[in-house]
Amino acid sequence: MILARVKGTVVSSQKTAKMEGIKLLLLEKIDPVTMQGKNDFVVAMDGVGAGIDEVVFYVSGSGARMAETTKNLPTDATVTAIVDIIEQNGNIAYQKN
Amino acid sequence: MILARVKGTVVSSQKTAKMEGIKLLLLEKIDPVTMQGKNDFVVAMDGVGAGIDEVVFYVSGSGARMAETTKNLPTDATVTAIVDIIEQNGNIAYQKN
Amino acid sequence: MILARVKGTVVSSQKTAKMEGIKLLLLEKIDPVTMQGKNDFVVAMDGVGAGIDEVVFYVSGSGARMAETTKNLPTDATVTAIVDIIEQNGNIAYQKN
Amino acid sequence: MILARVKGTVVSSQKTAKMEGIKLLLLEKIDPVTMQGKNDFVVAMDGVGAGIDEVVFYVSGSGARMAETTKNLPTDATVTAIVDIIEQNGNIAYQKN
Amino acid sequence: MILARVKGTVVSSQKTAKMEGIKLLLLEKIDPVTMQGKNDFVVAMDGVGAGIDEVVFYVSGSGARMAETTKNLPTDATVTAIVDIIEQNGNIAYQKN
Repeated sequence: MILARVKGTVVSSQKTAKMEGIKLLLLEKIDPVTMQGKNDFVVAMDGVGAGIDEVVFYVSGSGARMAETTKNLPTDATVTAIVDIIEQNGNIAYQKN
Repeated sequence: MILARVKGTVVSSQKTAKMEGIKLLLLEKIDPVTMQGKNDFVVAMDGVGAGIDEVVFYVSGSGARMAETTKNLPTDATVTAIVDIIEQNGNIAYQKN
Repeated sequence: MILARVKGTVVSSQKTAKMEGIKLLLLEKIDPVTMQGKNDFVVAMDGVGAGIDEVVFYVSGSGARMAETTKNLPTDATVTAIVDIIEQNGNIAYQKN
Repeated sequence: MILARVKGTVVSSQKTAKMEGIKLLLLEKIDPVTMQGKNDFVVAMDGVGAGIDEVVFYVSGSGARMAETTKNLPTDATVTAIVDIIEQNGNIAYQKN
Repeated sequence: MILARVKGTVVSSQKTAKMEGIKLLLLEKIDPVTMQGKNDFVVAMDGVGAGIDEVVFYVSGSGARMAETTKNLPTDATVTAIVDIIEQNGNIAYQKN
């Protein structure tokens, strides 16, 4: 899974029928050392109710359809967790406010 | 899913039989901050009737066969949405004309 | 799918049994704007009878096993089309001779 | 599979239900020649009880769900081995303490 | 599939049970024009009995589990062929000794 920050949302009215009612998040991948954005973006389905600026991770590939809410959906990226703590070498590198 | 702009079409007469009648789009990936092309291209099946210059996103991998029209087709990239709005940090970063 | 040019073939006598009789192509990915090679190579199964120097595209991942001739084969890349025309912004960017 | 070093853990309370009780490791990919980190990180499920600073490899994609403990879980990366020895050209390039 | 050279082996005693008895190869991807290594490494299961310094190719993703010996194993990379000849533009670019 890849760490990312929620930067926004993507809205579409013309889409495949299976995607009706699914919230689409614009994510920016982050470097977990600096917690800065890497200017590399992906659109992901929201499996956890993540909000703007939250640090999350998403699962890609067929794993993106293994969340409770994304079975058989046309997705290759689904947010499956909002991150509370990233611990590195015994230190708290990131903690959610 | 990855944001991209429809740049053209790809036509083939010699292809695997399952691909008969499928429209193939040439997509250029875009940076959602600047909306500029990244000079990185992919050929995708069209699942939504997207036209030239439209901003779309496509799903890759096995998810590309989860649209209504691409089941069991030999695809690893399918356009599943035409983008109306990209919202970033509370601002409209992109809006379809 | 990714656009590429057929650069050659790969021959192997020691291989998994399922690959017997399958033609293996050496492909170089191309930039569809310049049609030049990107010095990035992949070995793909041939699903369409492509010849040297032809412009093709291949499907990767599990989609590579969705062609008529590659079901259940150990492939992650299969050529599924020989390209006749690439049209960009209303112009013919490439046409097969 | 990709060689990596365990750098830490990721904790999440808001996550898809299937992930309850799963330990999540923060991995940094390493160069097996120098054994140095490549500043490229991934979050993986732990399939072997790996600890901080251990050299491991992880399997990605649908293979990440083929371990005994990750069947049907929403994962695209699972640690499946703690590395004891990396042998290169007849020499021991790395040996676990 | 991707061309690579066998550089060594990886040994692990703590691993998921399904991996018992499987030989793990350290591969370095190669440029098929120069046949030089690209300093990009992957650990792959051995499906063909490849030895040190041999030029091989491996299949990645779910295709890595389509060899006779890797069904349902937790692998994302399996060596499926030892390369005898790479032919480019009518010339023998590489031939196994």
